[in-house]
Amino acid sequence: MTTEITAPADTKIVLGSNQYGKAEVRLVKITRDTVRHQIQDLNVTSQLHGDFTAAHQDGDNGRVVATDTQKNTVYGLARNGVGAIEEFLVQLGEHFTGEFDWITGGRWAAQQFFWDRINDHDHAFSQNKSEFRTAVLEIGADGKKSIVAGLEDLTVLKSTGSEFHGFPRDKYTTLKETTDRILATDVTARWRYTEQAIAEGIDFDAVYTSVRQLLLTRFADTHSYALQQTMFQMGQAVLEAHPEIAEIKMSLPNKHHFLVDLEVFGQDNPNEVFFAADRPYGLIEATITREGTEANHPIWANIPAFI
Amino acid sequence: MTTEITAPADTKIVLGSNQYGKAEVRLVKITRDTVRHQIQDLNVTSQLHGDFTAAHQDGDNGRVVATDTQKNTVYGLARNGVGAIEEFLVQLGEHFTGEFDWITGGRWAAQQFFWDRINDHDHAFSQNKSEFRTAVLEIGADGKKSIVAGLEDLTVLKSTGSEFHGFPRDKYTTLKETTDRILATDVTARWRYTEQAIAEGIDFDAVYTSVRQLLLTRFADTHSYALQQTMFQMGQAVLEAHPEIAEIKMSLPNKHHFLVDLEVFGQDNPNEVFFAADRPYGLIEATITREGTEANHPIWANIPAFI
Amino acid sequence: MTTEITAPADTKIVLGSNQYGKAEVRLVKITRDTVRHQIQDLNVTSQLHGDFTAAHQDGDNGRVVATDTQKNTVYGLARNGVGAIEEFLVQLGEHFTGEFDWITGGRWAAQQFFWDRINDHDHAFSQNKSEFRTAVLEIGADGKKSIVAGLEDLTVLKSTGSEFHGFPRDKYTTLKETTDRILATDVTARWRYTEQAIAEGIDFDAVYTSVRQLLLTRFADTHSYALQQTMFQMGQAVLEAHPEIAEIKMSLPNKHHFLVDLEVFGQDNPNEVFFAADRPYGLIEATITREGTEANHPIWANIPAFI
Amino acid sequence: MTTEITAPADTKIVLGSNQYGKAEVRLVKITRDTVRHQIQDLNVTSQLHGDFTAAHQDGDNGRVVATDTQKNTVYGLARNGVGAIEEFLVQLGEHFTGEFDWITGGRWAAQQFFWDRINDHDHAFSQNKSEFRTAVLEIGADGKKSIVAGLEDLTVLKSTGSEFHGFPRDKYTTLKETTDRILATDVTARWRYTEQAIAEGIDFDAVYTSVRQLLLTRFADTHSYALQQTMFQMGQAVLEAHPEIAEIKMSLPNKHHFLVDLEVFGQDNPNEVFFAADRPYGLIEATITREGTEANHPIWANIPAFI
Repeated sequence: MTTEITAPADTKIVLGSNQYGKAEVRLVKITRDTVRHQIQDLNVTSQLHGDFTAAHQDGDNGRVVATDTQKNTVYGLARNGVGAIEEFLVQLGEHFTGEFDWITGGRWAAQQFFWDRINDHDHAFSQNKSEFRTAVLEIGADGKKSIVAGLEDLTVLKSTGSEFHGFPRDKYTTLKETTDRILATDVTARWRYTEQAIAEGIDFDAVYTSVRQLLLTRFADTHSYALQQTMFQMGQAVLEAHPEIAEIKMSLPNKHHFLVDLEVFGQDNPNEVFFAADRPYGLIEATITREGTEANHPIWANIPAFI
Repeated sequence: MTTEITAPADTKIVLGSNQYGKAEVRLVKITRDTVRHQIQDLNVTSQLHGDFTAAHQDGDNGRVVATDTQKNTVYGLARNGVGAIEEFLVQLGEHFTGEFDWITGGRWAAQQFFWDRINDHDHAFSQNKSEFRTAVLEIGADGKKSIVAGLEDLTVLKSTGSEFHGFPRDKYTTLKETTDRILATDVTARWRYTEQAIAEGIDFDAVYTSVRQLLLTRFADTHSYALQQTMFQMGQAVLEAHPEIAEIKMSLPNKHHFLVDLEVFGQDNPNEVFFAADRPYGLIEATITREGTEANHPIWANIPAFI
Repeated sequence: MTTEITAPADTKIVLGSNQYGKAEVRLVKITRDTVRHQIQDLNVTSQLHGDFTAAHQDGDNGRVVATDTQKNTVYGLARNGVGAIEEFLVQLGEHFTGEFDWITGGRWAAQQFFWDRINDHDHAFSQNKSEFRTAVLEIGADGKKSIVAGLEDLTVLKSTGSEFHGFPRDKYTTLKETTDRILATDVTARWRYTEQAIAEGIDFDAVYTSVRQLLLTRFADTHSYALQQTMFQMGQAVLEAHPEIAEIKMSLPNKHHFLVDLEVFGQDNPNEVFFAADRPYGLIEATITREGTEANHPIWANIPAFI
Repeated sequence: MTTEITAPADTKIVLGSNQYGKAEVRLVKITRDTVRHQIQDLNVTSQLHGDFTAAHQDGDNGRVVATDTQKNTVYGLARNGVGAIEEFLVQLGEHFTGEFDWITGGRWAAQQFFWDRINDHDHAFSQNKSEFRTAVLEIGADGKKSIVAGLEDLTVLKSTGSEFHGFPRDKYTTLKETTDRILATDVTARWRYTEQAIAEGIDFDAVYTSVRQLLLTRFADTHSYALQQTMFQMGQAVLEAHPEIAEIKMSLPNKHHFLVDLEVFGQDNPNEVFFAADRPYGLIEATITREGTEANHPIWANIPAFI
């Protein structure tokens, strides 16, 4: 990093990494080939990569595929079917890199919101907000596709079966050890598919359903000594079951439920009455991976962070 | 309203209606009498009524039951069981009006968040965010209890079976008539129980479950010519089935899904590809009531408004 | 209330109070008569009153001025100038009640967001988010206009000059008395103009500026023994200065800042280090009014509640 | 990436990068050495790095400095003064890496909220919400400190002086070219200090004030042909003025203001009446850097993403 030590006044100011596009294109696709409609409810973001120096330095838009055009393309391509969100992102990515020769790659992302049928009705639905599904596709300058799938906002809680003790103590440590606490978190999980699996084809919807179930089951069934341990168990279960997944990252807030001290009112409180706190919260983040897997795959640099 | 025409300079400035308390007390109650735990997840607000002139005019807190005390009371009473949220509010209201003779009444409200068992597990749950339940109890100065129950944030959508035409046109009217559109809304419903039912006892949980199901079913099954009509059908179904309910109010945003014009790209769009808009949105609000029912029951003045 | 005691099965189900319209029409109006542009940034809601029974009961939209038309009208009328937001609402209200003879009244509301000039630039602005301004116009079936103006989200804090003691104690009371605490709140204030002032004309912008300043000054200068007392002082100052205002309502959360106990770490904490809590919070609400003023003016029933 | 091609079943599942701590510790520090109080209002996050394999794999918390302890430490250290938020983060980082020999580094972050004095009052303040300040410190396993400072949520708008034309057109392009549009964005900017400057000492508050002013001024004064160009100008101004800054990243939503078509109502609209849209929005992101500066400094991997 000699650069940072030389006088910056001597150095030229230049454009570094950059991307641009249209964010949060709200797309609802109804498939109505039969009277039994299907609904897909997406929030799509398209961002393009390439050499956009002229736009930044000279205000020359000759290479700037308008973000409005990107939005229109989302709707136009959706007309022919969406499929799994990962597949739709691939459609988008291949379209832009194919249509404009200076577009060398990009980042396409989607959130999917779920709907249940009302009384098994053909065309009436109620939204299932218990989580949402995410996906990110990055096409690199070498044309290689990387795909990260995920879920967010899946809130889970165990009312027992969670301990926390044995932690080090210093002068700032006041927390009591416990062998029975509530453990609650909002699961954000993101898993990256292997290159090989992407090349061979993945049943994205089936893997999503399976990963979601594995995360829930392992959360429920692990007797927890630390949220870190529960998280590792969850990730391990996913990697064991899914060779198409190279690594999984999770970011788990520890949503504290504090036992209320009722003694002063003359009452006991055998882990029955809790105050659910907002902030601060613990924040536990990790990558569960396979030995030998690249530690910092480039796609992670462009995904809402956790390490 | 002669008062407002006389010179205000001549009139004394006084304290009008007022209330105070603790808002959003987050209570999680685990019932663990058996290994199969029950979870109740509430957000409770307590506000007291009485003559608090001295606090306002002289800073004399002799009658101000501290909001911290109100919070503690929520937790203390919860220790003995919560029951239906309406029942818990009644416990709170009776406590405060009984404990402090200058507390003439008040307003107690709760939101309830729902949890499903993970794999039918005894003590592991995932949050069901598809709606939340609400309740408001008001105890008047005459000791009378009024109760409004409700639900919020229940998002529903019909992908067909909705028309909108026959509306008047003026120079500002550009909307095209349609015989097939998406109809989507977030249901906020609040129903007031009759005095008689409150006196005789209500199975609040059972009514909640039934009302929720009636609202969903009627939304799904009504062929809609206007959101107003669908709303009326929903309310009517509730009143027909539940003599214990005096009236029901609903506030329904018309969440617009605009058909995307794909013609310019050389594509048709037979009600398949939609843009889901955020703002503005339609807003349809009404009271469905029984003939002869009091039009402006006082409890409504103290509930997040709709008419 | 005999109705509620007779068997509801015998009673007809009818449409009660209702309104509909378009909510949150985002309007930015640039006035560019000179090179020094003016910006007005509004969020407008229009809701109409009248007899809409046919729409609700029969799906007959013959009287349903489309919400889309209401939105268009907001933009069309804005072309000729907005003025104070109260004046713009009056324009809207008079338009709809004049244009459609079955529209007997309605409710029109606006939020205004503020912008400051960047370096006194002619056409570059930065948003001032420290509060937003609100207004509600209601036109009754008798043609009478009622206007409530307000502000929201004005967050203020005193780091001393606030005490809280002398409150009653019961078995649930654990709060310590204090003669020095942080007092912080988000001011929501709404004031109703007198009929006479509306008839004679009001300089709405000037009153807004003055009320805002009075609220801030009185909050700062009152040595507080209770948030109730500070609130009353704030309201009283407004009514004393503004005969055109009949009454003012405030809803003030008591945003708790808890002194952190540092003793266990061997440190003192002379009111220096605080934890700013999210929930629960105190909630203090009152009307400050003039003796003889109508206690429950109908417009309040249709404004996000506080009593 | 041979790893990803070999059968994952053969590979061991291991813990990859990870961190944990306490997020969003809300700290309000009042400095009351004189009657003229100072207020600092922070939201602090502490996350520790080290070898926590035992916690993840065995539930052994012997090295897990409790997140509650991290929270307590924030408050304990604040007692002795906060200083610039970057300085406070350094205090925190040095404490944890010094106190616990297995803590090899970490990530400490803060948001700062601003307050103005009310009427130049000694201890009464109103919150200035027009933006908030951010900082992230990362201490690497080699003990090296990296610091990124920033601001978020600074909303700016130009009502003229912005054009957009010359962009490529394909079959999905419907956007009209314009020589006069509204340009509006919410500025998120993050700048990384050079190692040399960190070693020599930085007046973080002064640089913050200067960068903020440069961003605003350059936004206002640039005649814009693309938001990309305006953004580059903003970043260039910062780097030119501040040799202590190695690079700056910005993420700028293009907050669309659509000219309303009033012709159908018989009105012109010479850039006066706009619809301010929510979603979708353009999203323009770039790094402005000095030639030769490291392209992917590791700290960025752990900051809410943009490239």
